[in-house]
Amino acid sequence: MTEENGISLEELQLAARNHGMPLEVLREDVTPIGLHYLLIHYDIPQVDADTWRLDLDGRVGTELSLDLDALRGLPAREVVATMECAGNGRARLEPRPVSQPWLLEAVGTGRWRGVALRDLLEQAQVEADVTDVLFTGLDRGIEGGEEQLFQRSLSLADASEPDVLLAYELNGVPLPPQHGFPLRLLVPGWYGMTNVKWLTRITLLDEPFTGYQQARGYHLRQTDEDEGEPLSRIHPRSLMAPPGIPDFMTRERTLHAGTVTIEGRAWSGLAPVAAVEVSTDDGATWDAAQLDPPELGRWAWRRWSYDWNAAEPGRHVLACRARDEAGNAQATEPRWNVGGYANNAVQRVVVTVE
Amino acid sequence: MTEENGISLEELQLAARNHGMPLEVLREDVTPIGLHYLLIHYDIPQVDADTWRLDLDGRVGTELSLDLDALRGLPAREVVATMECAGNGRARLEPRPVSQPWLLEAVGTGRWRGVALRDLLEQAQVEADVTDVLFTGLDRGIEGGEEQLFQRSLSLADASEPDVLLAYELNGVPLPPQHGFPLRLLVPGWYGMTNVKWLTRITLLDEPFTGYQQARGYHLRQTDEDEGEPLSRIHPRSLMAPPGIPDFMTRERTLHAGTVTIEGRAWSGLAPVAAVEVSTDDGATWDAAQLDPPELGRWAWRRWSYDWNAAEPGRHVLACRARDEAGNAQATEPRWNVGGYANNAVQRVVVTVE
Repeated sequence: MTEENGISLEELQLAARNHGMPLEVLREDVTPIGLHYLLIHYDIPQVDADTWRLDLDGRVGTELSLDLDALRGLPAREVVATMECAGNGRARLEPRPVSQPWLLEAVGTGRWRGVALRDLLEQAQVEADVTDVLFTGLDRGIEGGEEQLFQRSLSLADASEPDVLLAYELNGVPLPPQHGFPLRLLVPGWYGMTNVKWLTRITLLDEPFTGYQQARGYHLRQTDEDEGEPLSRIHPRSLMAPPGIPDFMTRERTLHAGTVTIEGRAWSGLAPVAAVEVSTDDGATWDAAQLDPPELGRWAWRRWSYDWNAAEPGRHVLACRARDEAGNAQATEPRWNVGGYANNAVQRVVVTVE
Repeated sequence: MTEENGISLEELQLAARNHGMPLEVLREDVTPIGLHYLLIHYDIPQVDADTWRLDLDGRVGTELSLDLDALRGLPAREVVATMECAGNGRARLEPRPVSQPWLLEAVGTGRWRGVALRDLLEQAQVEADVTDVLFTGLDRGIEGGEEQLFQRSLSLADASEPDVLLAYELNGVPLPPQHGFPLRLLVPGWYGMTNVKWLTRITLLDEPFTGYQQARGYHLRQTDEDEGEPLSRIHPRSLMAPPGIPDFMTRERTLHAGTVTIEGRAWSGLAPVAAVEVSTDDGATWDAAQLDPPELGRWAWRRWSYDWNAAEPGRHVLACRARDEAGNAQATEPRWNVGGYANNAVQRVVVTVE
């Protein structure tokens, strides 16, 4: 399960399929299509939009079966949301949990448009004993030795939040195949696995769902035997767009002496971002960054900037960290767990001033 | 320069930025935006389309300086072209040359639209002594110890081919930032590095260009001291969409016994594809695949299919290989070189029939 040496062929196969967001793209409010991170558990399924339907069943008074035109005919809602993979930062842990080896790029912000899930739940007349809502995608594969469609559940209360969408558009165009065409779940503020892609079925349950992705995957565990805590909302993080220009191979940065504006984004699914701080001396001292107004709404990352007087030639280590209004803050050092989840340790960027 | 063990942190940093095309997307004639491979040498530059201009200078009778509207006002040409990174297959070499660690996914096919370069060259009245055309992009970084803008050149003859485009659209929309917004060079049939993105300047020269990316990078060398052969046109390759369903971690495939249609794509920049063959016994025997008509034109990959009677339970190794009309064929085993280029060794896919 864990690895202390170089990345293995299996991990590389995953890294070749699953896309990170190049960090210079942090300059964009909304991530352009093709630059948002992607984690595809199995294969991208081929979906025929003409025959596809969303079925809603289980403990409901009225089962629903809707095609894409029917969904598009319902009142629409738009949410700008930052999404992050629960495994972002995994490859920075030691020993390294073996799975998709994310460094820091597993994030993106989309302008999602669709139907509020609670409108459909209301239409279906949910039974009084319902506790959980199960979401089933069309992507099929084998994990933990089980053949499965990708499935995750939410409590009825979480599923009924007003900004939870069944999204059919991203950034003003129909969902691209890799983002779940024709329909995906969008739960703002929750880690990526929650947002089931290629949605085909929603099932109302009177007991918790115990499938692989819910009960086994996506838990914070210290040993394989721990029951662990399920991952849910995104922990706070700030990332900067690395200043200067990169060396091709090392990605280390060079910049000319003078004042440089460092900019980045910060987010937390737990509470609104309260503050971002920047260090230009490898964490010895910290200064407040300037936070822009939250113009994209509660669920999007917030832009920040910091003017650094890069006067002294030589090697410098820059860092940034966020905390939210509930007092959640980024860890200084990575906190290890079996699955390699939620590693929100502070980003460090090495720059050479010339 | 080379590595016999696991992938290093530096290689992983590149793999996290540079995107491969998930192989199931081989089913699509044209690769959807966001799934085409990407190799970004430095950072994606931020370009203001309102102030951006393309300058054409050097040994010309009339220097040109055109904005995007002026380019869009010229007669347009559309080409469907398969593009592949010269480093595709690098991570399969042993010892592994250290750079972007591609397995097999560094490919994609786009519907590119723009202006024929030769129309602009004609307008600029190229001097009689011109031998080479230099293309300069806006992406800036350090490589081989040199600070540089990404630059590559072509001979005047190659640059004057009718399908060489200055492309401003991909798949019917303006170039996405990661593909070179607002303008890139498109040289059908040539490896990816030829197709300079974020184009800012075209310069007519009366001698060869000897910058890093032309004279040092992108050569087939057996030692660091070799002069080597420059890479240019894409060597033949066939890839299949792996059949069945994947295991999350190993990506190994499982399918149920019965007849399965294996499908894939084949291409060569050297000459049209002549034949594709499939093996279902790890290369011991080969059968001809069915080649679809070349409906997308000369520069696009060609679809093929093969019906396999997967009757026998157990582990099977599938393979496919292409050859072109000039007699170029895929290597059975990788051919090592210092830069890890042009490794078109036959793809092998492990499947378990149940």
